Amino acid sequence: MKSFIQVDPESHFPIQNLPYGVFRPLTGEDPRIGVAIGEYILDLAVIERAGLLRGVGIKEDIFNQPSLNEFMALGRTAWKNVRTQVQTLLSEDEPTLRDNPVLREEAIIHQKDVEMLLPAKIGDYTDFYASKEHATNVGTMFRGKENALMPNWTHLPIGYHGRASSVVVSGTDVRRPSGQMKPPTADAPIFGPSKQLDLELEMGWFIGPGNEHGKPIAVASAEDQIFGLVLVNDWSARDIQAWEYQPLGPFLSKSFATSVSPWIVPLEALEPFRVAGPTQDPTPMPYLQKDGPSSFDINLEVYLKGEKMDEAQKIIGTNFSYLYWSMAQQISHHTVTGCNLRSGDLLASGTISGPEKEQRGCLLELSWRGTEPIEMNNGEERVWLEDGDTLTITGWCQGDGYRIGFGEVTGRVLPAYEE
Amino acid sequence: MKSFIQVDPESHFPIQNLPYGVFRPLTGEDPRIGVAIGEYILDLAVIERAGLLRGVGIKEDIFNQPSLNEFMALGRTAWKNVRTQVQTLLSEDEPTLRDNPVLREEAIIHQKDVEMLLPAKIGDYTDFYASKEHATNVGTMFRGKENALMPNWTHLPIGYHGRASSVVVSGTDVRRPSGQMKPPTADAPIFGPSKQLDLELEMGWFIGPGNEHGKPIAVASAEDQIFGLVLVNDWSARDIQAWEYQPLGPFLSKSFATSVSPWIVPLEALEPFRVAGPTQDPTPMPYLQKDGPSSFDINLEVYLKGEKMDEAQKIIGTNFSYLYWSMAQQISHHTVTGCNLRSGDLLASGTISGPEKEQRGCLLELSWRGTEPIEMNNGEERVWLEDGDTLTITGWCQGDGYRIGFGEVTGRVLPAYEE
Repeated sequence: MKSFIQVDPESHFPIQNLPYGVFRPLTGEDPRIGVAIGEYILDLAVIERAGLLRGVGIKEDIFNQPSLNEFMALGRTAWKNVRTQVQTLLSEDEPTLRDNPVLREEAIIHQKDVEMLLPAKIGDYTDFYASKEHATNVGTMFRGKENALMPNWTHLPIGYHGRASSVVVSGTDVRRPSGQMKPPTADAPIFGPSKQLDLELEMGWFIGPGNEHGKPIAVASAEDQIFGLVLVNDWSARDIQAWEYQPLGPFLSKSFATSVSPWIVPLEALEPFRVAGPTQDPTPMPYLQKDGPSSFDINLEVYLKGEKMDEAQKIIGTNFSYLYWSMAQQISHHTVTGCNLRSGDLLASGTISGPEKEQRGCLLELSWRGTEPIEMNNGEERVWLEDGDTLTITGWCQGDGYRIGFGEVTGRVLPAYEE
Repeated sequence: MKSFIQVDPESHFPIQNLPYGVFRPLTGEDPRIGVAIGEYILDLAVIERAGLLRGVGIKEDIFNQPSLNEFMALGRTAWKNVRTQVQTLLSEDEPTLRDNPVLREEAIIHQKDVEMLLPAKIGDYTDFYASKEHATNVGTMFRGKENALMPNWTHLPIGYHGRASSVVVSGTDVRRPSGQMKPPTADAPIFGPSKQLDLELEMGWFIGPGNEHGKPIAVASAEDQIFGLVLVNDWSARDIQAWEYQPLGPFLSKSFATSVSPWIVPLEALEPFRVAGPTQDPTPMPYLQKDGPSSFDINLEVYLKGEKMDEAQKIIGTNFSYLYWSMAQQISHHTVTGCNLRSGDLLASGTISGPEKEQRGCLLELSWRGTEPIEMNNGEERVWLEDGDTLTITGWCQGDGYRIGFGEVTGRVLPAYEE
């Protein structure tokens, strides 16, 4: 399949992808919804207004909105119908849009001419802890190898509620948080800017229709709730975290900012890359058992560029398929008590680490709690993030001659706030 | 001060209170905002439309809405202006409303003729752990007397992110959650309905204007963020909690439901009842230091009525002023890293316990983890909540001949969900 719009084979956004995002033209018009195609965006509000999305079962003006929530609520049949129709409109053999220069002019915008916004109004944000390698590494550092994994870890996908208000879109600067921490040698806690600022390489997914309060989502149908996936950087202040997290879990150490990539890749676009996740031992309880492969082969990379570095350096390369608990299991677990998910809710995987050193998804693990500094290409070292550092996470599935990509989530560290 | 509307001295809603709520007339009209006065509601949408709120600095139709969020965003000056004007309109000496039977007919509705709704769209819900007695009791049960309080507890108000989607208004039935738990004697976890369902007596407060992401709220001005207070029941499944909570804190054990009372009592109405909280030792860090009394003398009671009981029985009687960390401190701490609070966000205190046995704010403490059953007035015992139990929390400040009350938050336990 090819589009009449030229797309580089290395591009993240070929016609096989068509991720959804919310954009505002730099000319200052109202935000609305589009799909990425190569270096361009197809403005779905224009396409809809031109009558080209009739008969696909969506209500009027669903794309002329500043968030995807209403479209997410419609469910998989509507998503598939729209996707098929948009794919047809963009294909090289279809003249409707291709041969209509007035409509093309109006509906196709270069990505450099827009600002990307948060794609949804996030009601609740939940973060899991689904990578066995990550949980084992962190546990080993804090409790020793023998007690690395908590007894509950292999029985259920551990998760916690994150902060929705501070989820920001890629490109937003992130201010170093100040807070309480207690250095191991100090008698009393101290206050100041975090000295152990970290990233966490994660992926997140947005919830479609959601469930009625009190009615769990069965694991067999849990994937029907996944509208699509994004890259997530769950910025973390390890020194604040170490002092505050007992007994109720991480709070301020993570609520100062969470960054997401702007383009939501539909689950449909990832189907060719479906793979099995790791073998689960012990066998999960029935409510977490699902037939067939439930993971995806998604390459993930993290780049760091310090202020004094000429170019960004790759510091992490791993894969989504290392995750022990699947998205379907996480959704089913989340709702098994009757907790309700709503359209636009964001669930994230937790740090994604693999078995190799380069596959560790955060600096805490990469530098092994500061004992193994990372060499940078300009001679500097990194143990934690420094002011001015720009962190970029990218990810893609490699097809035969094309890529299904996620673009990137990037953010620069600003110095701590001063009054 | 007296209203021309008759108000019983025991009523929670005299003219000195005037709490805000969102109601829907049982006749099916659109939800809108009112204040409670005795057994009645003054419909502020009607009052506004009649031109009686001109000149108080609010935009049009701010009360003809299904949530208080926009009014909350205006801040204390606007809240005070509206409150003064409404108090004047309701006072016995003011003829404008008193002597206008047509307007009275339209604007004054009996509370039995409406359904109360959630008063705000809650963006994020945060729950603290601010009672020293509660934290000490729970710590003693789980870790012994010597290690009851974690080392961080006296230095910062411990909190965690709760689930916003499952916050429900008083009167909503609460379904017993099913989930994983691991009985102490079992080799492996089991799945089923929680056997240790509990209540938590808390109070919550709604955030006014909020803060810009990255800019902390100083403790000195933190009370300007408090629109008003409600009663909160943070239902908890102790067996699910014990198995899941390490290392990221409570998740499904509390996210199945949190109930709030529908009437938000303005901070202004509580001013006559301002008192000092407990002495804080060690002295908190500067960002948590505030001059003057920061707590309120609010009587709190919990009643339980089992299906076979003829009348509800009081099981808890305590006071808000036992809370160690003040609301101002909790707000300031929440934002010290730059985390942003938004209008309509809900913060809650955590279980409020006092020094005496009857003042313990949850069954876990009252029954001392099941070892001291509670005698009910029909000969039954309670260790945890049973299906059919109705829990009611109420609270009020006792003035001279009047009460500033919170009404109640009530909920009945339904049996676990079955497919």
